[in-house]
Amino acid sequence: MERVAIEKKVLSENDRIAQQLRARFAERGTLVLNCISSPGSGKTSLLERTLEGFPPETRVAVVTGDIQTDNDARRLARFGFPVRQITTAGACHLDARMVEKSLDGWDLSELDLLLIENVGNLVCPTSYDLGEESKIVILSVTEGDDKPLKYPGAFAKSRLMVLNKIDLLPYVPFDMEAARRNARSINPEIEIIETSCTAGHGLDAWRQWIGARIHEAARKEEPG
Amino acid sequence: MERVAIEKKVLSENDRIAQQLRARFAERGTLVLNCISSPGSGKTSLLERTLEGFPPETRVAVVTGDIQTDNDARRLARFGFPVRQITTAGACHLDARMVEKSLDGWDLSELDLLLIENVGNLVCPTSYDLGEESKIVILSVTEGDDKPLKYPGAFAKSRLMVLNKIDLLPYVPFDMEAARRNARSINPEIEIIETSCTAGHGLDAWRQWIGARIHEAARKEEPG
Repeated sequence: MERVAIEKKVLSENDRIAQQLRARFAERGTLVLNCISSPGSGKTSLLERTLEGFPPETRVAVVTGDIQTDNDARRLARFGFPVRQITTAGACHLDARMVEKSLDGWDLSELDLLLIENVGNLVCPTSYDLGEESKIVILSVTEGDDKPLKYPGAFAKSRLMVLNKIDLLPYVPFDMEAARRNARSINPEIEIIETSCTAGHGLDAWRQWIGARIHEAARKEEPG
Repeated sequence: MERVAIEKKVLSENDRIAQQLRARFAERGTLVLNCISSPGSGKTSLLERTLEGFPPETRVAVVTGDIQTDNDARRLARFGFPVRQITTAGACHLDARMVEKSLDGWDLSELDLLLIENVGNLVCPTSYDLGEESKIVILSVTEGDDKPLKYPGAFAKSRLMVLNKIDLLPYVPFDMEAARRNARSINPEIEIIETSCTAGHGLDAWRQWIGARIHEAARKEEPG
């Protein structure tokens, strides 16, 4: 019981900081997306392909979380947009305080989009609000179509599920319809986009989805 | 700081129960293996193929952990050996208390082998001793050869790394030598077995590895 109480306290402190962040992001018109998935489902590859497709004048930045190494930040920095690595040194998720610190020195009013790549973990990041506008869950087809049922939290809280690595569908026992049905049984409103970062499938739909969200965030910022 | 202190307290309480479990397992000569991996790396499939290969008289039982659903227990029960599901209802790992409770009514002296399938999470289960003789980390080749560097805890604490889904090697950018090198840079002593549960590769080596461990556990139990 004590443990539950402490966990609630940690989460409510996190929620307080996340609400401040959310207010800052809304005020500056910055769309913030929090990408959550298992290790190796292709978050970094998806972000690489996303950045690669943006014109150089795009006002986008990335914060990427890992337990160890700055490999992901180095991969993502190649595209010329600002990227910061959060190394959690063992912690299994990003929290709002880490994100707040990582923003130091960035002028949010100069950013239309902030992409957050969480630590590879389908469980814990779900419990930590980072002030994002939306969570996005990435599920690769090699992981199995049952994952929304077994790890419901991430799917319940996400606006979008990206079904990634669809180029591998011929080689793995993954039922696309079952995956969609399972995700919608947890979250009837969840949107779904299918992608392959290696074959380039679905990336236009993904970029359009982001574009529509940025447009909406900017519209909300307008006075009146 | 407060949070760190609390975490230490929770872990030391877990360690106390885990040590009691370890003593019970050693006294009864039960080999206990704690299988850790990301979601969807093939833990349940590996256990299916393992149970399938055992003669019916094998004295083996399985405890399988999931956040939600008893799908895994149902899959594993088909082989006729005792299986119990721990549903953690949101918790991101098994702990020693959950394992202790799950053993209720089982006579450990009748068991040579207890296989524990942890919650699919490459991070948190690493911190919770379950009284096992060895941890085993399963990494599927679809997850990427960099994972030992990015999630070092599980690789540092495991006696064996199972590189699974090697049938998919032709279709994914995975460098087997880099994966071995990365794992050994974290844990020079780690043993490595390559498997494919769908194609049946490496399962003999895996079963022999378990057999050798059971033999050793039984030898230690002998008086004198």
